[in-house]
Amino acid sequence: MIVQKRSFDIPKLQLECGEVLENARIGYETCGELNADGTNAILVAHYFSGSSHCAGRFHQTDQTAGYWDSIIGEKKAIDTSKYFVLSCDSLCNLFPSDSNIITTGPATLNPSTGRPFGSRFPVVSIGDFVASQRLVAEHLGIKRFHAVTGPSMGAMQAMEWAVQFPNDVERVIAVISPGLSAEAYLIARLNSWCCPIYLDPDFQGGNYTDGVKPLAGVRQSFKLVNLDSVHIGWAKREFGRAWAKPTLDPATSLKNDFAIERFLDEIGALRADLVDANSILRLVRALQNFSIEDRIDRLRARFLFIPAKSDLLMFPQYSLEAAEKLRSIGVAADVHILEGDGGHLDGLTAIARAGNTIANFLDSNV
Amino acid sequence: MIVQKRSFDIPKLQLECGEVLENARIGYETCGELNADGTNAILVAHYFSGSSHCAGRFHQTDQTAGYWDSIIGEKKAIDTSKYFVLSCDSLCNLFPSDSNIITTGPATLNPSTGRPFGSRFPVVSIGDFVASQRLVAEHLGIKRFHAVTGPSMGAMQAMEWAVQFPNDVERVIAVISPGLSAEAYLIARLNSWCCPIYLDPDFQGGNYTDGVKPLAGVRQSFKLVNLDSVHIGWAKREFGRAWAKPTLDPATSLKNDFAIERFLDEIGALRADLVDANSILRLVRALQNFSIEDRIDRLRARFLFIPAKSDLLMFPQYSLEAAEKLRSIGVAADVHILEGDGGHLDGLTAIARAGNTIANFLDSNV
Repeated sequence: MIVQKRSFDIPKLQLECGEVLENARIGYETCGELNADGTNAILVAHYFSGSSHCAGRFHQTDQTAGYWDSIIGEKKAIDTSKYFVLSCDSLCNLFPSDSNIITTGPATLNPSTGRPFGSRFPVVSIGDFVASQRLVAEHLGIKRFHAVTGPSMGAMQAMEWAVQFPNDVERVIAVISPGLSAEAYLIARLNSWCCPIYLDPDFQGGNYTDGVKPLAGVRQSFKLVNLDSVHIGWAKREFGRAWAKPTLDPATSLKNDFAIERFLDEIGALRADLVDANSILRLVRALQNFSIEDRIDRLRARFLFIPAKSDLLMFPQYSLEAAEKLRSIGVAADVHILEGDGGHLDGLTAIARAGNTIANFLDSNV
Repeated sequence: MIVQKRSFDIPKLQLECGEVLENARIGYETCGELNADGTNAILVAHYFSGSSHCAGRFHQTDQTAGYWDSIIGEKKAIDTSKYFVLSCDSLCNLFPSDSNIITTGPATLNPSTGRPFGSRFPVVSIGDFVASQRLVAEHLGIKRFHAVTGPSMGAMQAMEWAVQFPNDVERVIAVISPGLSAEAYLIARLNSWCCPIYLDPDFQGGNYTDGVKPLAGVRQSFKLVNLDSVHIGWAKREFGRAWAKPTLDPATSLKNDFAIERFLDEIGALRADLVDANSILRLVRALQNFSIEDRIDRLRARFLFIPAKSDLLMFPQYSLEAAEKLRSIGVAADVHILEGDGGHLDGLTAIARAGNTIANFLDSNV
């Protein structure tokens, strides 16, 4: 399946923090065909370090497909012969210099200065992402979403859609979600992703330039993102206590690493030069601020929660408690737990294990 | 119970890394009386950010007692009317400038230069701590340990004792332990405690001075130590989604924090000026290197593992797997799981819940 990145311009977007964002540009991808009455659409919202590239390939020669390609496509769980899939790049996407991502954020040039907005870019929210997606959906002729879904930050957007526009969302599939709010421990974990950036002197209060940017801080930040997204079973199986170099014993020098330390350093560094540090800070804050808890009386959609059993970032109990809370006020809410020892990442790599459950849920009456 | 800090000098200590440490000074505390044949001693080894102050008070006016005072004392689980308790400050203790701690590490003055050893101080190991404790024990006339115990890093020392000196240890009580080895995921978590120090420009490769030291890095490091030591239940109950200041909404500025973020910042800063960054790096490496897995055929002691149910750093399954492994080779090994939602810290604050189990284990025949 070949997909294309397109973009949509929003002249003025009112943000929840009170500021107005001018000339926001949003990237998006679609698969399948929208039906005549505009009611067969499924929104797939992306995770923290992801993009709208949820399925298919840009070119036939691409080595990898979109992150949920295992469940999106013809005859797959989200069947693109039946449904029209829309996915949008978030505001403040972490990879503004990736040529396949179109976003508006701190790295965007401020037309009044000719330099990036940097530290002056406002705080954004999950609600702002939903507001921007709503405009893209209207532009495409979508009248109502058959379902909204996504993993992690994507699940937050799906839930936010259901409270902001209860009449336009029939089903919510919240994969590896924090439940109805980002709770205290998650808020603190997310905070730890920002600390390395603030420690890096090249951050310069957010007013760095392309020439000198907080690369060391971003690498450490991504290392923590990766560490928080895996699980002990995976780490033990992949690395155990192996050394990074077989002749360099960690017991003799602090410079000698274990293999898992080296791996996390390398993963952290892999795309760090494409990442914008100010965008990390803003996406983290958007995640921390997520809460629909006070607005659940507005809900009309039916819910399916898909936590990962070994998730150490958004624990399965978050989803179990959320489903129970929703059922207690009469909202239909099922839970399917992804088995596995891959941690939070199972919501991406092992999602096909919930394929039948997702397909049945999409077929169900609401 | 009033205790006194004493010290013991070791002219030369052979370290496992190959280097010889000269003029090591080790602080220690004791409670109770050693019996005539020197066989009623219990060693209590301390955790990462702890010291030998496991029980009692230095002065009657002290606000707090030692960290395991709830189980050590007359008629308590570790009954000092029956047992003689010894506890030693580790090499490279994190708080060399705390007047109640006596340690030898990177902050110690190098007699040949008159300046701190700093980055030149060697890598130390759990085995080195045991070797130093063995000399203190000999000096005091201890012939055999009725039991060796400790939480977290203390549990590692207890297990190391039992493989290094199998004839001198009758019982091991490993509280909130990593099992028989520090596994890959723990190695990576521990690595994350070092990263903020390396990011701080004031670290200067370990050759900082008292005037300019990596305080910001140490604060972030301690923040992570604290975060890794708690649990989601505790965080939710204590802080929820409260803001640090009721009028400063985190949704409007990155400068406005949540209450749990502020708390962790304050906890991180609380004793940071007393902490030596180079010592953090060395204790972390000692923890990462811990493994008795290849030497368990030497064991003659009986084991009791006490994991904490909600521990997110040294997961209960580490202890369950270790006990199973030991039983499979004929070593007696029981497990008592501490109920609670305090995370790793339950091994300190909730240890009294295992008081009866500990007392019975100490009374049991070996």
